[in-house]
Amino acid sequence: MKTKAVFYHAGCPVCVAAEQTVANALDPARYDVEIVHLGEDKTRLADAEAAGIQSVPALVMDGGVFHINFGAGIDALR
Amino acid sequence: MKTKAVFYHAGCPVCVAAEQTVANALDPARYDVEIVHLGEDKTRLADAEAAGIQSVPALVMDGGVFHINFGAGIDALR
Repeated sequence: MKTKAVFYHAGCPVCVAAEQTVANALDPARYDVEIVHLGEDKTRLADAEAAGIQSVPALVMDGGVFHINFGAGIDALR
Repeated sequence: MKTKAVFYHAGCPVCVAAEQTVANALDPARYDVEIVHLGEDKTRLADAEAAGIQSVPALVMDGGVFHINFGAGIDALR
């Protein structure tokens, strides 16, 4: 049974670096990684905010929110 | 050939959460993850600063620095 991990981003350079490195480095045997572009899919903003995301890029996994560097504040994506 | 990833922390709760979740989730088939406690091993501070780390926890991999949330500033560890 794999655990779901969701990587939220907004297409910014900081986001792309985090996606290509950290998100892609997660163990595929243990994690199903979903990539969500909040700039293109505003319907996911509520989920992201409910999870506690304050900025992107961020990874939500195992019940925690892990903001990775700083690309853009969530306020800028509304 | 595995890639080396170095996870720098200082034993703080934010650090522990990031280590147990993100650092431990990296694919062991592709990454050798070294865990460095900067509070206990001051000799590694120079490496961390040279890599561009400004706060812990942080992951250095594939030539990039990925600060994960914010536990402590590097200045507080000198």
